Amino acid sequence: MLDSLKAALGEKVSTSPTDLETHGKDEAYPVRSLPQAVVYAQGLEDVIQTLAWARESGSAVIPFGTGTSLEGHVLPQGVAVSLDLSRMNRVLEVRPEDFVAVVEPGVTREQLNAALKGTGLFFPVDPGANASLGGMAATNASGTTTVRYGGMRHNVLALQVVLAGGEVLELGRAVRKTSAGYDLKDLFIGSEGTLGVITRLTLRLHPLPVHVHTLRVFFEGLEAAADAAYALMASGLPAARLELLDELGLGAINRYLQRDYPEKPALFVEFHSSTREALEAESRTALELVREAGAIAVDAARTSEERTAQWEARHQLYWALVAQYPGHSFMITDTAVPISRMPELVRHSQRLLREMGLGGSIVGHVGDGNFHTLVATGEQDYPKAEAFAARLVEKALELGGTCTGEHGVGLRKKKYLAREHGAALEWMRQLKRLFDPQGLLNPGKVV
Amino acid sequence: MLDSLKAALGEKVSTSPTDLETHGKDEAYPVRSLPQAVVYAQGLEDVIQTLAWARESGSAVIPFGTGTSLEGHVLPQGVAVSLDLSRMNRVLEVRPEDFVAVVEPGVTREQLNAALKGTGLFFPVDPGANASLGGMAATNASGTTTVRYGGMRHNVLALQVVLAGGEVLELGRAVRKTSAGYDLKDLFIGSEGTLGVITRLTLRLHPLPVHVHTLRVFFEGLEAAADAAYALMASGLPAARLELLDELGLGAINRYLQRDYPEKPALFVEFHSSTREALEAESRTALELVREAGAIAVDAARTSEERTAQWEARHQLYWALVAQYPGHSFMITDTAVPISRMPELVRHSQRLLREMGLGGSIVGHVGDGNFHTLVATGEQDYPKAEAFAARLVEKALELGGTCTGEHGVGLRKKKYLAREHGAALEWMRQLKRLFDPQGLLNPGKVV
Repeated sequence: MLDSLKAALGEKVSTSPTDLETHGKDEAYPVRSLPQAVVYAQGLEDVIQTLAWARESGSAVIPFGTGTSLEGHVLPQGVAVSLDLSRMNRVLEVRPEDFVAVVEPGVTREQLNAALKGTGLFFPVDPGANASLGGMAATNASGTTTVRYGGMRHNVLALQVVLAGGEVLELGRAVRKTSAGYDLKDLFIGSEGTLGVITRLTLRLHPLPVHVHTLRVFFEGLEAAADAAYALMASGLPAARLELLDELGLGAINRYLQRDYPEKPALFVEFHSSTREALEAESRTALELVREAGAIAVDAARTSEERTAQWEARHQLYWALVAQYPGHSFMITDTAVPISRMPELVRHSQRLLREMGLGGSIVGHVGDGNFHTLVATGEQDYPKAEAFAARLVEKALELGGTCTGEHGVGLRKKKYLAREHGAALEWMRQLKRLFDPQGLLNPGKVV
Repeated sequence: MLDSLKAALGEKVSTSPTDLETHGKDEAYPVRSLPQAVVYAQGLEDVIQTLAWARESGSAVIPFGTGTSLEGHVLPQGVAVSLDLSRMNRVLEVRPEDFVAVVEPGVTREQLNAALKGTGLFFPVDPGANASLGGMAATNASGTTTVRYGGMRHNVLALQVVLAGGEVLELGRAVRKTSAGYDLKDLFIGSEGTLGVITRLTLRLHPLPVHVHTLRVFFEGLEAAADAAYALMASGLPAARLELLDELGLGAINRYLQRDYPEKPALFVEFHSSTREALEAESRTALELVREAGAIAVDAARTSEERTAQWEARHQLYWALVAQYPGHSFMITDTAVPISRMPELVRHSQRLLREMGLGGSIVGHVGDGNFHTLVATGEQDYPKAEAFAARLVEKALELGGTCTGEHGVGLRKKKYLAREHGAALEWMRQLKRLFDPQGLLNPGKVV
């Protein structure tokens, strides 16, 4: 069967063990599962041909970007080829006058931002990893700046997708508003390669912030930190990042970097101000607000160097945990809840870690009610970490939240969707059957 | 057939001529078409029962809010009952701590904002009319504040909908982020009552702006106005409204209000600043930017009274045109294009008006590349106005734009969707067939 694929696509098809290996895992899912081949698509035609071959052969096709997903999204569940889009990596158009860029799906967010140098604009969605923009759209990724700029759904204006049947659709337009018919673009965003293959994206750009100031603030407890976060959000101050790090994380950082930060919940806040004067006033107002909410230590930064130093605890957390738990890997949860319920869920998560004898820490996008528990898992611990995640999700759903704020469903969270969506899940499955009746596209994922 | 509907819903069913009359038209579509009855639903059960009756009887059902739509959305295309949701008008929950409100679909935006008094929060989407929030979601409405706060799609977190088959689905959650499965919520937003009936909305609230300042700026030509708008958007200034009014409109205003405004393109800009100091600095920066772009007359306002006076030309435009064209009605187009193409399309629209001997004016959400041509149509003129709209849409699509930025498709714009969406339109039709196989819900609209 692979012969006909190779006949069609030649050198673009690889069955080298290294290629199969790198396409049979992601950054966190504890299982490997190899595809039978990797197709390195170089353009739309290659995607169309791969899908034509799949329809003939019955083989599944799994779109692959950088492999930085976390939930088993790219792992074959049976016979499958991995459709690697990383070589479709051209920035096709930058139109600063429209605040728009058009890219191929393999372009990474760092690559795009490098290409935007000199335009005064940037693409704000930042999930941490230097992921491909196609992959970020496929999982509806977001990150630290989402509180201000929105996630992928808000920043992808249009998509070109190839359906399982080979049809090429253009969804959405390069405009900031449209009410012209059903919103298929947003249906494909977050569909994790199960409804179609994204082959081009039209993205919304934003002015680069010039006047940036940041705060690092420690609090006695989570409630005070949450109060401060609420006060900042309700104030109309232009908060662009609003991050929480818990006392467990600060302990790990102190040991890893030999620091003596208070081992207390901390907020890391970044403001994008319009002018120097606005910055001064907003900085003062922010300080007042966090002090009123009970800040016990506050540290402000204005220069880029100061900011880097100030945010080290946030940025180094993962490595501090790696050092603290040698030989462990990390499961990273991403529940989100209505903002006011976040302290309760964070506390629940800390208590669960303790009760279950698991190591870890919490870091979160508190402005979005979304946080990560990084759970250290030894080789034998995975079932325990899974049980932890299940209990955390259960609580999040009980509080009106979602099982995944930004990582997506993949394999790992399929089991939660019935509870989260109720009868709507069956309609998601019907959409899957409508767009992919043979079940060729990333089967076994999401629905 | 109506007997069984009346048996089920009693007094909630009306066949009074007045009720049929008010539900057989909208605010702009030139045709009337009466439903056979109006059902005044008072709760979810009534909606479910109406749909059960529709499945039995084969009668169509048209969800109805305030009837302020413009494109024939609510007009029966055959035998139909109008399902009036205006009595489902309770604000069910306001949770300021989550920036969330939960409402029934008949709640209007003004009613919601009145209910939010004292919370320091507001719901920002403002399409002009005091429309129902259910109707606004159904058309993906937006308006003057969308440049800053987004339209309905960005501000509806979750929906309860009843499908044609009677199933009740909960779509989305009261969280600011989720990547949990296919985005059905956004599929129903903008579906204009053709996929299901919206029976509850969970909305995102925003902090009320405290420090507001506005500018009214006149320019020699459209290009200079567009340059200024671009400079303001690229500056990072917190523009919350960015409106254009053309020279034709200012002429009408001068005659109507006996003013002597320059009959030149004008920008109306509103900023929502974080602090008094930020306001001062932002006001100065904005003035510099519009002067650099070639402003010929600038007027700034700080107080609410000053602002009202300043914006009269924008707000009174419709009435000025009504006075200028007695006995005419108005067709209001709402094309949107990539921002930089707006001057070209505005000019095209003015030229078409002239060429076709039509009266009118242009007012637009320039920050979104979206503008309205208000075309005065006498009793015999409608076909000419239709021809004008078709030529305008054609040009908008050619420039990469959309036939409707915010009013929706209804009856009037169906003919443009094939060109705008290509092969994707057939997939929209397949979704319609999937969710409404009997074709009961607002048939003949959108797809």
